[in-house]
Formats: sequence, structure tokens, C-alpha cells
Amino acid sequence: MSHIWLESLITENAQQGFELAMKLSRMGVKYTQPSDEVRGKLRSAYEENADSLIATSQVVAINFQTVSAANNYWRS
Amino acid sequence: MSHIWLESLITENAQQGFELAMKLSRMGVKYTQPSDEVRGKLRSAYEENADSLIATSQVVAINFQTVSAANNYWRS
Amino acid sequence: MSHIWLESLITENAQQGFELAMKLSRMGVKYTQPSDEVRGKLRSAYEENADSLIATSQVVAINFQTVSAANNYWRS
Amino acid sequence: MSHIWLESLITENAQQGFELAMKLSRMGVKYTQPSDEVRGKLRSAYEENADSLIATSQVVAINFQTVSAANNYWRS
Amino acid sequence: MSHIWLESLITENAQQGFELAMKLSRMGVKYTQPSDEVRGKLRSAYEENADSLIATSQVVAINFQTVSAANNYWRS
Amino acid sequence: MSHIWLESLITENAQQGFELAMKLSRMGVKYTQPSDEVRGKLRSAYEENADSLIATSQVVAINFQTVSAANNYWRS
Repeated sequence: MSHIWLESLITENAQQGFELAMKLSRMGVKYTQPSDEVRGKLRSAYEENADSLIATSQVVAINFQTVSAANNYWRS
Repeated sequence: MSHIWLESLITENAQQGFELAMKLSRMGVKYTQPSDEVRGKLRSAYEENADSLIATSQVVAINFQTVSAANNYWRS
Repeated sequence: MSHIWLESLITENAQQGFELAMKLSRMGVKYTQPSDEVRGKLRSAYEENADSLIATSQVVAINFQTVSAANNYWRS
Repeated sequence: MSHIWLESLITENAQQGFELAMKLSRMGVKYTQPSDEVRGKLRSAYEENADSLIATSQVVAINFQTVSAANNYWRS
Repeated sequence: MSHIWLESLITENAQQGFELAMKLSRMGVKYTQPSDEVRGKLRSAYEENADSLIATSQVVAINFQTVSAANNYWRS
Repeated sequence: MSHIWLESLITENAQQGFELAMKLSRMGVKYTQPSDEVRGKLRSAYEENADSLIATSQVVAINFQTVSAANNYWRS
């Protein structure tokens, strides 16, 4: 991608870090399926599917590990 | 999200850390499916499905790794 | 949960650490499905399903990573 | 593979690191299924399947952990 | 379990470490399904199922991370 | 296994490390299903299945984390 969507893994606090982990998870999908239209269509299905939502939460958890380590867990 | 739901990854003890990992796992779902009504409907299905419960426990385990590292494993 | 089920991640040896990882994995399920009756019913199904057992072993492996790191791998 | 496709895990910034994680994820597939034709055929199916896209995003997340650690999280 | 099956995570070399990771993966199953007879019956099915074998290899990979870290990667 | 297939986790460079991660992933399958004939038969099916290929790439990613850490990420 030519435009900059990820400046840094550093965030001000843990919640912003979690939200960055959400973004990383979505970008992992977007790189593979760049069409907003197709992703929108898929979204309306998987967001009502419990197993898809749990799988999404798992990807977020993995990315949150990365962001948390980058930020030294926002300790102190 | 505009309201603050995650102040810190630091908890008083391991059990509270596990409970925070539960919360992070649920929030990973909630960001994707914000409707309480839809999540409630899905919940009544997946909470009686063994594979969904195991998958949930896996997400919690990943988040618990993060919280445990943040707390230096509550050693001493 | 109001009662204390997790005092510490520190165990005397690696095998006890593995058994704690088992417990953490089960608790991840129990928080989501608190009914002993429902879990018992599900258990009789998934414990004869190879893929469910492999998935269970995966959750244990993730939790064992956490417990092992907490105990500095019981080195020396 | 005889040709060099991975020179280093070090990248200039986080976004390039994420793109390297994408590449590592694709190479994990390519080593197992080297035929461009077969992969192309499969791609047109899985890129419209929500669960496949989430699974892809998970592989990227795991590889991004590796690349991020290699780069010390691009901390200044 | 009352008998000792896991003395230590330390092994002489990387290959023994991989074999210990195999054992940990099997024990994760055995604790949940203690019957040798049931596990034997399941095994004859999943060992001819590609997705089950890949899932098994994933559990081994996770446990091998733990064993490798415990052994400081058998460096030098 | 009595023969030596894993001498060390140390490789000359990142690409060889990735290839070692491929080998570890395959060995995780081979220990469970030692028959070359059965694995060959399964392979012709899963190598044309997108979800199996993504799952394979995930196992490689996990093993590549281990090999990368062992090699200190081949940083200069």
C-alpha cells in the first residue's frame, strides 16, 4: 500500500493500544481483500456468527500482544 | 469507543488478571459486534457448543499471556 | 467470581505447572458457561471428538507457556 | 527454494514490517503449494470467505509478532 | 495425575526438545480423555485426516516454543 | 525417532530459518502419521484446499517465531 496507515506501534494508553490491535486485525483482512464492497458484504454475515466473532477476537488478542509489548505494557 | 473501559493492564493478583483477560476477550467481540441484542442472541447458542467454548477459552489464554507478562507474573 | 481459585502462577515443578495450565483452560470455559450441568453434558460429547481434544490440548499449551514463563521454566 | 526472497527481518518502519508479515504468510502457503495457477484458483474462493480472511489475518498477526520483535518494535 | 511424567523441560538437544513437545501435546489430550481405548479409537480416524494432523502439528509448535525457551534454544 | 533430523535451531540467515520452520511443521505431522504413503495421499487433497493451506502457514509462522528467537532474529 502506498499510503501510510501505520505510523507507529506506540500508543498513549492501553485502550488505544487495543484499538490499534483492532486496526491491525482489520488491515490483515484488507490487504487480502481490498474491495470495500466485498468486505462489507462479508461483514454483514460474520458479525452475526458467533464462531467468526470469537475468531476475530483471537486475532485481536494476538495483535494486542504485539502492541502491548511494544509499549512495555504501559507500565507506570 | 469514546468511554474508557481499559485503564491499565496491571491487576492486584493473578485471578484478577485472568478476569481482565476475560474482559479483553469479550471486548474483542464487542468492537466487531456492538449490538448487545445480537451478542445476547449469539451467546445463548455458543455457550452450549463445546467447540465455541474451547475457542473462547483459547482467546482468554492468549489475553492472559499479555496480562501476565504486564504484571511480571505477580511474582513475589 | 467471588471465591479465590487462582492464588498464584508459581508451582513447585513443571508437572504441577502443566496441571495448573489445565485448570486455567477449564476456567476459561467455566467463566463463559458456569453451569456444571451444561458443561458435563457437553463434555461427554467433546471428549470423544478428536478435533475437540486437539483444540483443548492447544489451549493447555498456550496456558502452559504462561505458567512456564512465570516459573522461569523451573530451571535449576 | 534456491532464489533469495527473504533478505532480512529488519524493515524501516512498522508498516513495512506489517507488509513483510503479509509476505511471510503468503510464502508459508507457497512452499506447500508452489503452483501459481492452483493458488490463483484457490484465492478467488477464499478471498470472498469471511472465515478464511480472518484465518489469514491471524497468520499475519503471528508473523507480525516475529517481525516486530526483530525490529525492537521500531521504538525510535 | 499421581505419577510423575514430566520431570523437567530441559533436554539435551533440540530434537529431544521437539519430542518432549510431542509428549506435552499428547498429555494435553490424555488429561481430558484418560481412556487409552477411546484415544486409540479416535487416533485411527484423525491420523488419516489432514486438518487434524495440521492442528496436531500446531499444538506441537506451541509446546516447542515453550521447551525451546526453557532450554535457551540449545545455543552453544 | 532414532535418526537425527534436527541438529540445531541456528541457521545462517532468515530464509534458511523459514525453511527450518517448514521442516519443523512437517515433522509435527510426520511423528503423528509416520507413513509416507498416507501422508502423500493426504497431501494431494489438502494442497488444493485453501483453509488447509492457511492452517499450514499458521503452523509455519509459529515455528518461525521459535527459530527467529533462537537466532536472535539474524540481527547483523
